[in-house]
Amino acid sequence: MKRALVTALAATALAFPLTAQEAPPAPSPAEIVAGADGSEWIDILPEDLLVMTLAPDRDGKARRVVIQLMPEPFSQGWIANIRTLARAGWYDGISVNRVQDNYVTQWGDPNYDNPEAEGEAKPLPEGLRVIDEGSYTTLWSDIPAVFSQAGEIITSRAQDLQRAMTGQSPMRGDAYAATTVLAEGWPLGLEDGKAWPLHCYGMVGVGRGMSPDAGSGAELYTVIGHAPRHLDRNIALVGRVIEGMEHLSSLPRGSGDLGFYTAEEADKRTPILSIRVARDLPAAERPRFEYLGTDSQTFARYAEARANRRDPFFIVPAGGADICNIPVPVRSTPATD
Amino acid sequence: MKRALVTALAATALAFPLTAQEAPPAPSPAEIVAGADGSEWIDILPEDLLVMTLAPDRDGKARRVVIQLMPEPFSQGWIANIRTLARAGWYDGISVNRVQDNYVTQWGDPNYDNPEAEGEAKPLPEGLRVIDEGSYTTLWSDIPAVFSQAGEIITSRAQDLQRAMTGQSPMRGDAYAATTVLAEGWPLGLEDGKAWPLHCYGMVGVGRGMSPDAGSGAELYTVIGHAPRHLDRNIALVGRVIEGMEHLSSLPRGSGDLGFYTAEEADKRTPILSIRVARDLPAAERPRFEYLGTDSQTFARYAEARANRRDPFFIVPAGGADICNIPVPVRSTPATD
Repeated sequence: MKRALVTALAATALAFPLTAQEAPPAPSPAEIVAGADGSEWIDILPEDLLVMTLAPDRDGKARRVVIQLMPEPFSQGWIANIRTLARAGWYDGISVNRVQDNYVTQWGDPNYDNPEAEGEAKPLPEGLRVIDEGSYTTLWSDIPAVFSQAGEIITSRAQDLQRAMTGQSPMRGDAYAATTVLAEGWPLGLEDGKAWPLHCYGMVGVGRGMSPDAGSGAELYTVIGHAPRHLDRNIALVGRVIEGMEHLSSLPRGSGDLGFYTAEEADKRTPILSIRVARDLPAAERPRFEYLGTDSQTFARYAEARANRRDPFFIVPAGGADICNIPVPVRSTPATD
Repeated sequence: MKRALVTALAATALAFPLTAQEAPPAPSPAEIVAGADGSEWIDILPEDLLVMTLAPDRDGKARRVVIQLMPEPFSQGWIANIRTLARAGWYDGISVNRVQDNYVTQWGDPNYDNPEAEGEAKPLPEGLRVIDEGSYTTLWSDIPAVFSQAGEIITSRAQDLQRAMTGQSPMRGDAYAATTVLAEGWPLGLEDGKAWPLHCYGMVGVGRGMSPDAGSGAELYTVIGHAPRHLDRNIALVGRVIEGMEHLSSLPRGSGDLGFYTAEEADKRTPILSIRVARDLPAAERPRFEYLGTDSQTFARYAEARANRRDPFFIVPAGGADICNIPVPVRSTPATD
């Protein structure tokens, strides 16, 4: 028998001789998502997509990473700067300078935010917003603003919130926030009437120095290990990797402090050829993605199944899930412009 | 100013102009561990260390991985098999066959537990214990057995348990277990008088097929992403990687189902030259490691600091921590045999 740690092979009858005749096996989370109605998927705006092109790998294979930026009201000062930096071509020619195992992969100007820097920092473009400690107030937001950008509470979103608040949500038992919820397509913490985004695997944030420095958006990182949730509310999150995460997570780890590549291993710094806002690309090169609406019926079934695995491989359903173990499903769609 | 996402650079006075004169900065978790007394570190027995030698990397650099096996009473049937397989040389010449992003790296016979297998499976050695579904009862254990292998409750360990049970532990808010605790050097879940080990980053488990198959120990994996805690109590955990994790986490991801390397990318399967029990190695080659006792005073301070970061980089301490964000400190020590 071919075997795997987690497998979708059709060995159900063999595995469950007592019950296989009685009921079909429970669908896996992936099977539930595959059955979603087209109307439950939500387009991601081309203005909210960043296309990052790394230098080809050692076998000459292209490496594209796509990042989805967060919607209002979160971190909009930094996100405006990221678009400005991309449109000025400032990111072109920077590199991945830090890969720390079970923590982050970080990219930027190797002569700026890097204890191993050897040269002069590259000047930043005109037009960046001033980001100071006051900007941290936009790291979190009043809850109503999250649930309705137009001001009113939208019913299905209020239901999400209600489920989360009354403990009926499958996202239970969080060590870092009174309540967690997947809303507007993002993992959020809720406490004292405020909401903020969470450092799950693949989330993208803004490197910074010691407070009161808050970073500009020129230096970015993504989470490549267990969710470092102690960074929540301490660093601005601006988005998440939705394609090509493996190009960032499988890079060689740096041997310098904090996982920076030392000067001796400077050849391990992966060059970043360009970062573009998808809206600025020719239609034929513009990627299109959509996410499964977190207020959809299918999402609720998917989240419940992630928290209570009953598909054939499992013996003991967990009865709950860490919010970072319920990743929001994202898929690419054919370009039709 | 040199900057980093998380930095230990001495920029405190600049960062905290209002408080720098008043008190020294709070020590980081790493600084607390560095101050531990020698007596707080516990030797890991050579019988509990596996040394896995991968083929050198593309630059010809050696790759050694060291795994610490779990102590009694957990998963001892599988662990006995792992020692038998290592001592029979059975693992020599197997390979890493599966690398699934944000999930696991898995190694074994490429012709056995692999949907991409092309040849005949390698016969298993004599003397393996029979592992069947009954073996799962040893996946978890009565709590007293965890806290005392000799039968009595040892005071300091009972205190750990007491802290965990009364919610005074920094490990709070778990989605998968009523209570979690770091005891005997390992992350454990506690519920209904039972304890079991947890799928944190770097933990090593036994690949298996559909239940009632329980795996033999010939097929192993390690967690390379966010803790897949829904696997707790569903698969046997047998240890954790304590050196060389980056050699497993930074491998190229497989493009087949579940991250298996397809037949076309068979050259990506990293060869495993050997796996040895450290006790069987010549003294000069035998690695020595110790871990910070989880019932030590320094461990309690370290865990509290991980849950409430007050070192200069941080603005908002979290007030709690996910148990997988409090990794047990492990260090190598000079061989003195």
